[in-house]
Amino acid sequence: MSIAKKMKYSISQSSMIRKMFEEGIQLKRKYGVDKVYDFSLGNPNVEQPDEFKKELIALAGEEIPLKHGYAPNAGYPETREAIAAKIRKTTGVKMTADHIIMSCGAGGALNVILKSLLDPDDEVIVLAPYFVEYPFYIDNFGGIVKYVSTRQDFSLDLAAIQDAIHERTKAIIINSPNNPTGRVYSQDEIDGLSRLLDERGKALGKRIYLISDEPYAEIVFDGLTVPSVLAACSNSIIAYSYSKTLSLPGERIGYIAVNPDIHEAADWIGALILCTRILGFVHAPALMQRIVARLQDVSVDVLVYQKKRDLLCDGLARAGYQFEKPQGAFYLFVKSPVPDDVEFVKLLLKKNILVVPGSGFGGPGYFRIAFCVDDATIVNSMAGFAEAIKECGLSS
Amino acid sequence: MSIAKKMKYSISQSSMIRKMFEEGIQLKRKYGVDKVYDFSLGNPNVEQPDEFKKELIALAGEEIPLKHGYAPNAGYPETREAIAAKIRKTTGVKMTADHIIMSCGAGGALNVILKSLLDPDDEVIVLAPYFVEYPFYIDNFGGIVKYVSTRQDFSLDLAAIQDAIHERTKAIIINSPNNPTGRVYSQDEIDGLSRLLDERGKALGKRIYLISDEPYAEIVFDGLTVPSVLAACSNSIIAYSYSKTLSLPGERIGYIAVNPDIHEAADWIGALILCTRILGFVHAPALMQRIVARLQDVSVDVLVYQKKRDLLCDGLARAGYQFEKPQGAFYLFVKSPVPDDVEFVKLLLKKNILVVPGSGFGGPGYFRIAFCVDDATIVNSMAGFAEAIKECGLSS
Repeated sequence: MSIAKKMKYSISQSSMIRKMFEEGIQLKRKYGVDKVYDFSLGNPNVEQPDEFKKELIALAGEEIPLKHGYAPNAGYPETREAIAAKIRKTTGVKMTADHIIMSCGAGGALNVILKSLLDPDDEVIVLAPYFVEYPFYIDNFGGIVKYVSTRQDFSLDLAAIQDAIHERTKAIIINSPNNPTGRVYSQDEIDGLSRLLDERGKALGKRIYLISDEPYAEIVFDGLTVPSVLAACSNSIIAYSYSKTLSLPGERIGYIAVNPDIHEAADWIGALILCTRILGFVHAPALMQRIVARLQDVSVDVLVYQKKRDLLCDGLARAGYQFEKPQGAFYLFVKSPVPDDVEFVKLLLKKNILVVPGSGFGGPGYFRIAFCVDDATIVNSMAGFAEAIKECGLSS
Repeated sequence: MSIAKKMKYSISQSSMIRKMFEEGIQLKRKYGVDKVYDFSLGNPNVEQPDEFKKELIALAGEEIPLKHGYAPNAGYPETREAIAAKIRKTTGVKMTADHIIMSCGAGGALNVILKSLLDPDDEVIVLAPYFVEYPFYIDNFGGIVKYVSTRQDFSLDLAAIQDAIHERTKAIIINSPNNPTGRVYSQDEIDGLSRLLDERGKALGKRIYLISDEPYAEIVFDGLTVPSVLAACSNSIIAYSYSKTLSLPGERIGYIAVNPDIHEAADWIGALILCTRILGFVHAPALMQRIVARLQDVSVDVLVYQKKRDLLCDGLARAGYQFEKPQGAFYLFVKSPVPDDVEFVKLLLKKNILVVPGSGFGGPGYFRIAFCVDDATIVNSMAGFAEAIKECGLSS
């Protein structure tokens, strides 16, 4: 064995999402793209906003000194100020450019935050069902994952969180709108969580940080707004990505926003900048930093996703599936008609439908549908979904 | 203390290069940009090749499905095939697209390689003077750095490397052309190193991998070519970046090339792809992946750098400085006229000249000049360099 011992195990445990993605490529080769219904990956098919396309074309032709050169590790000051101004305006929090560190997407941001924070064997609370990468991110820096389930409707279970906190607890990661459930935590839930972390921290003589992973913050439905974690909780830190807001997941652009009132803010900022550098990110991609500075008030058309959600939810409900209707993001977490979600996912695969077993998200008995796909994919998959549930003897 | 205990120490030890960079910004504000001679950072001032500019403008306007979407974690197959084809052509090594994993620059590549490889307390040999980030990268994954000095002329000291290898040794990192010395290792040196690693590995019943950090591979002078590590050593793996080849350090685009003959190649590739994902890189920036696929035979005009090197070396030699003339990259590692390099760097700072103390690179008694700057900066700095050495009583 030559590579790290841990790797072989990690590879075997690795993301079922990607496995479905690869499987999808094979199926599409065999049956044709329009005969395979691939709901496996959160790879938005929605076009970038026109403003983005125009800015990219404009910027491509502009002469700027050191246009593609190194930026300060934290990012271009003008980009960071544009983001800080947006946060000030929308939340009232006294954010400055110094509190913004540009990142390679939210995934990069979370790794930088966790490396800055964790000593070996520190615990981080992760709420199940969870985004599959969190346990890896925490383990990267010697942290221990403490899983806490959400309630039946995927809302926060504050009592369970309270029970999970002890002297090694350093942080909790939340993700709202949530992948894989589409849940948006209410103002009351966020306020309650903030109070709880504050009280438990005081009782333990320490701080427990609220790490909020917010790549879907702009993707919310039915006129809902996402409560501001920064406004509700002083010991909070945000990982944001433009991947979904501007439909650019491949470009790896996002940021970290540190609450100006966070305990030991200067240490945090110093550590985050250092970790951005020494983890090899160096800084976020230059061209994209310049573009997002100009597009703070732009996002994809959320109604497009809302329509897809409705199309999917209506169809599946008619077929007899059970689920909580998503309030945001572009995922639906559906109860598997049979207890073994992996088995049901294999049944769907026979209908050329690709979804991901809930087990991969710490939510066994469910499966995840990523509905950032063509409307036609949703519509044409419905026959297969109906057949599958019927074969389990469970259709409506 | 809230953040990780290690961070506070790391921040205090952190890069002197960046400190000089920040200092430079202050000095420039005070004296004006043309009165400050900033040689602190390897941020190429040389323009991108015209072909790059044209491709960027063309690509900005092109309609491509999922143009900015997620790629497979290893990168776009067509980009990887273009790179593999180039390597096959230039080295004769039977490289395939499967052996190429796109990365966020060489810094990202090295982190992914080291995470894939290292178990806690594994040792990695680093040759001093060294690129300042290597010790951080190794420490990120619990590895231990074993420093081995190069010889007086910065060539490989094979006997010292041999002595440093023992049962915990897992790899050696080399960097040719070298930052900070500009040294290019000869075919004999690379062949000798390869044999040594092979023999010592066999004696110890294991493999010792050769990790070759090659961001300057195309920046070589006087018609020199850099010997292929892939052709010379089967247990080798390359970290490459387009930062210097195309003058794009801010865009974070590079790749990992795994030797097709490496021990347990499939495990390596699986681990590298997984680590790309779980370290939060996910994959390399999409637009840049598409561009570099089209620009495999393009690079900046190396003669521009060669001219700068000559201008600098001639001037400093006249002033009485001692150094090995760089064969590649855009750094000159100069002997400090006084034993304490930090003291001499402070003296240069009084002349508005910013360079980096050799101590930061594990090369005390030297300082580094990054000559990727305007010719005028080089020419106009010469008076200050001459004054400084004169003040040490050591001018020619």
